[in-house]
Amino acid sequence: MYFLRINMSDRTYELTELPPEYQHLAGRGLTSTLIANEVPPLAHALGPNNKLVFSAGFTTGTSAPTSSRVSVGTKSPLTGGIKEANAGSSWAKDLAEMNIRALIVEGMPAEKDKYWGVYVTWDGKPKVEFFEANQYTGKVLPEVYPTMYEKFGEDISVCGIGMAAEHGYGNSGVVFNDMKNRPTRYAGRGGVGAVMAAKGLKFIILDGTGAPGVSIVDKALFEEGRKKMIDALRTHAITKPKGALNSYGTAVLINILNEAGGLPTRNFSSGRFEGAPKIAGEAIFESNKTRMGKDVYNHACSPGCIIQCSNTIYDKNGKEITSCLEYESDWSMGADCGIDKLDDLAEMNALCNAYGLDTIETGTTLAVAMEAGVIPFGDSKGAIKLIHEMGKGTPTGRILGAGTATTGRVYGMTRVPVVKGQSMPAYEPRAVKGIGITYATSTMGADHTAGYTIAPEILGVMGKQDPLSPEGKAALSRAFQATTAFIDSSGHCLFIAFAILDIASGYQGMIDETNGVLGTNWTADDILKFGTDILKIERKFNEAAGIGKEADRMPEFMKTEPLPPHNGVFDVPDSALDSVFGEM
Amino acid sequence: MYFLRINMSDRTYELTELPPEYQHLAGRGLTSTLIANEVPPLAHALGPNNKLVFSAGFTTGTSAPTSSRVSVGTKSPLTGGIKEANAGSSWAKDLAEMNIRALIVEGMPAEKDKYWGVYVTWDGKPKVEFFEANQYTGKVLPEVYPTMYEKFGEDISVCGIGMAAEHGYGNSGVVFNDMKNRPTRYAGRGGVGAVMAAKGLKFIILDGTGAPGVSIVDKALFEEGRKKMIDALRTHAITKPKGALNSYGTAVLINILNEAGGLPTRNFSSGRFEGAPKIAGEAIFESNKTRMGKDVYNHACSPGCIIQCSNTIYDKNGKEITSCLEYESDWSMGADCGIDKLDDLAEMNALCNAYGLDTIETGTTLAVAMEAGVIPFGDSKGAIKLIHEMGKGTPTGRILGAGTATTGRVYGMTRVPVVKGQSMPAYEPRAVKGIGITYATSTMGADHTAGYTIAPEILGVMGKQDPLSPEGKAALSRAFQATTAFIDSSGHCLFIAFAILDIASGYQGMIDETNGVLGTNWTADDILKFGTDILKIERKFNEAAGIGKEADRMPEFMKTEPLPPHNGVFDVPDSALDSVFGEM
Repeated sequence: MYFLRINMSDRTYELTELPPEYQHLAGRGLTSTLIANEVPPLAHALGPNNKLVFSAGFTTGTSAPTSSRVSVGTKSPLTGGIKEANAGSSWAKDLAEMNIRALIVEGMPAEKDKYWGVYVTWDGKPKVEFFEANQYTGKVLPEVYPTMYEKFGEDISVCGIGMAAEHGYGNSGVVFNDMKNRPTRYAGRGGVGAVMAAKGLKFIILDGTGAPGVSIVDKALFEEGRKKMIDALRTHAITKPKGALNSYGTAVLINILNEAGGLPTRNFSSGRFEGAPKIAGEAIFESNKTRMGKDVYNHACSPGCIIQCSNTIYDKNGKEITSCLEYESDWSMGADCGIDKLDDLAEMNALCNAYGLDTIETGTTLAVAMEAGVIPFGDSKGAIKLIHEMGKGTPTGRILGAGTATTGRVYGMTRVPVVKGQSMPAYEPRAVKGIGITYATSTMGADHTAGYTIAPEILGVMGKQDPLSPEGKAALSRAFQATTAFIDSSGHCLFIAFAILDIASGYQGMIDETNGVLGTNWTADDILKFGTDILKIERKFNEAAGIGKEADRMPEFMKTEPLPPHNGVFDVPDSALDSVFGEM
Repeated sequence: MYFLRINMSDRTYELTELPPEYQHLAGRGLTSTLIANEVPPLAHALGPNNKLVFSAGFTTGTSAPTSSRVSVGTKSPLTGGIKEANAGSSWAKDLAEMNIRALIVEGMPAEKDKYWGVYVTWDGKPKVEFFEANQYTGKVLPEVYPTMYEKFGEDISVCGIGMAAEHGYGNSGVVFNDMKNRPTRYAGRGGVGAVMAAKGLKFIILDGTGAPGVSIVDKALFEEGRKKMIDALRTHAITKPKGALNSYGTAVLINILNEAGGLPTRNFSSGRFEGAPKIAGEAIFESNKTRMGKDVYNHACSPGCIIQCSNTIYDKNGKEITSCLEYESDWSMGADCGIDKLDDLAEMNALCNAYGLDTIETGTTLAVAMEAGVIPFGDSKGAIKLIHEMGKGTPTGRILGAGTATTGRVYGMTRVPVVKGQSMPAYEPRAVKGIGITYATSTMGADHTAGYTIAPEILGVMGKQDPLSPEGKAALSRAFQATTAFIDSSGHCLFIAFAILDIASGYQGMIDETNGVLGTNWTADDILKFGTDILKIERKFNEAAGIGKEADRMPEFMKTEPLPPHNGVFDVPDSALDSVFGEM
């Protein structure tokens, strides 16, 4: 296994054997450890001393189901803290199959606004070529991604950044190709795209042809684990074929959260949106059925996924508007902006993909701008226009592109739903207390994927817990955050959690798969310790960057403004928030 | 003595006797203690739980020379920490003479964008009336200030906010009248204006007619102190009549700092500006002399000032362009923007006064925008246009109005000269190490007035210290910061420091004046302890607001980019920075 270091100051690269101390790290575990070890915590996120690290998970590149995730780690220009964002793509599989455990982008060109691409192939070992990429900048991604396939052939995987990143936005993702080679799979959060752009790096092209693939130490154990995992995913109501996710996509959550009074609406001023049924996963399924004349089930975003939750939205003529409209995007640009027009939401989603914007941050930012009076709530055409402004980098577009916190600051707003500078996802902390604890305390800023307590609080996974009660939720969030830090290192998509937290053999399957690949003897306790250790590393980095426990707090309005329909406030005491890391 | 609390939620007021525990606090000492005791550190600065406190100094309203300062304290929307900004004005004298030790603005109206004024008169005790003020909003200050004098008579003093504050800008001051009733004397830094605007408060009008004045416990001691202070101020080369400040104003520093290689130029990319002689205080004096046909010496900004350093800039026809163009404003919009046209700088200064902008933050913000390519360095007409955009609240104007740090973020810049979100004043930390320590460690964000080590490092006050050496500078900054916290509580202008630090009897004069007023027996050690205690209170508030020692750092570029002409970096070790408060 290799470390591949790409130096953008002089456009050289260095290939080294995986150092022994990193042997048992991958994915988020590896990206966070490398960032903590190599980036000064007070470095400017867009400066030469920040780094950008890519690492696929332990099981990525094997036949483990739903395991083609790649982690992108850096110091975030949005939060100022450590960041890991991950995505599912064949790019992850190619990186793993080329035995590149970490691809580390370093330095920064002296020339401003000059861009290059790197092209990595297999020639007995990974080999890197640089190519000039300025001609691909200032254009939408659906225009430039196909040119990469024309240039390098159909066997490649593409990682790139869009115009949002070129503008230096705090809201800018790193995008990977999906199964149809579309630029749609995002490591979206925290401005990781802007870091890549600051390094003058437009594309990382991988061609894994001839690569040896991932070696598995104990094949029998791996096979055993893999089967347990597949059984769990194929059995569970949420993850099984034609189950909730495969039928309705992640947007199946719209109606569920609306019912629970936890769907943040019109810039987090209500937990219920009257237009929810019109934008729900069920409505997407029905719309596609009418327009396509048949039941349309969802597809996989990346190789080997058996959950297959990615939808496609078709217009009246059966033409694709976008793929995929996730729950988060559907909610952020929909309910949170008071917009209930599904086709317009699909168009907004397509524009975010075209410009390289994170959909969550985009929607929450538009909602703050709407409350500030820039456009009215519900104005979908105005919102489309504003996303175009973000892409073009007009003054208003730049304000919005800097993210929700900055937009709130520029307009002097007080209801700004962010923690550590990153905007909150689609679950209202005042109606679902556990996820609020995750938002407040995560090392990532507000992030549902960091500790998805929605599973027990709303979906009844692992037994149902009262979402409105703060009792026991700090411990719950802590356990979820630690487990997640491991899942994010395993290469698996977080959505395996629905199944493996309910079906114990599935959880053991994940452990067996990992032990099979690495030849380790990790137990469930070791998994939890692994995750906890990663969180502690991230936390220590953040503290050195000036982000301590005082930053583990909800914005003031959530503690003082009651949220309809339950009319509760976020009443988790600071001591409970502090216990998440304090008792780790 | 009274506390006057004005509640903007219901527009009521409460007058209470000065509580015993606040008996020996005034100015910054009182505003910071009240904010620390009454504002939750994590309150939103523009929300209902922040407060805005006004307090004049111990000697304000007496015949002590140069003592008409008023402190404005709050939680800053710019830094997120505690803030004290002060100004000289008859308003301070009136407040003191009405025996209002603190005027505390609380709450927030339910209606958005509704403004009121308060009118405080003396009727055996302070009496408050509210008046509707929406008709005065959306207009430049030179237009609305005269209407207050028309409405309430010539005996009033006026405190107000401009359009910058109405827009909610992090760059917005609270403005007080000068001796000619012009809106020119600013508590400028940290966005204190936006806090006042968020409370729906446009004006605070004081009419001290009939007020009893400040009672002095030991008149003989006070008189003795006052004479010592006057002697020092009239003797010292910097503060004496027709001395450096009275002749050339604070802009006398332009040539001095340029010579020292410490005049930040073109967004802190050099310490020397080739256009410095054209914008220096000497050039202002010569220009006025030519245009007015005589030597024009400077005037007092507030009653009782014997230093009299405020200039007026006249145009070719002898018409006033602005008063006063301070060194900081002259530098920030001049050298730091690469602009050497004095008349244009005077116009920019007038515009900042008209819109209610802090000139330091405005200039440093324009310089960052220039580096980002919004307009070229040196483009004074473009800069004038941008200040108009700030006033009008266009999208670009809003970006700039949010301040230097936010502008840097919106444009994705790395050379952003801020500490704790507040931009650096006119002394280059890489060329003058002690002031860099003050910038880094001050509770206020980057602020030269918080611990003006320029006095010994550049001006030779208290003996000359090598500006390029970091040796001993942490202790120097600590001593200056503590002494300053007392001076800011005494009611005196900081400029007395030039004289009283060189002339020991002058320093004793300040102590005698204060003891005379209060009936205390404070020694020089007590003064230092007073200042240290205030700093500790401020620091504790900041830490609880999430601003700890990791925020006591220079931006990365100052530690890595050598600054011409000396080609040094900011090489003060973190341990020295930490010792400022660590050894307090």
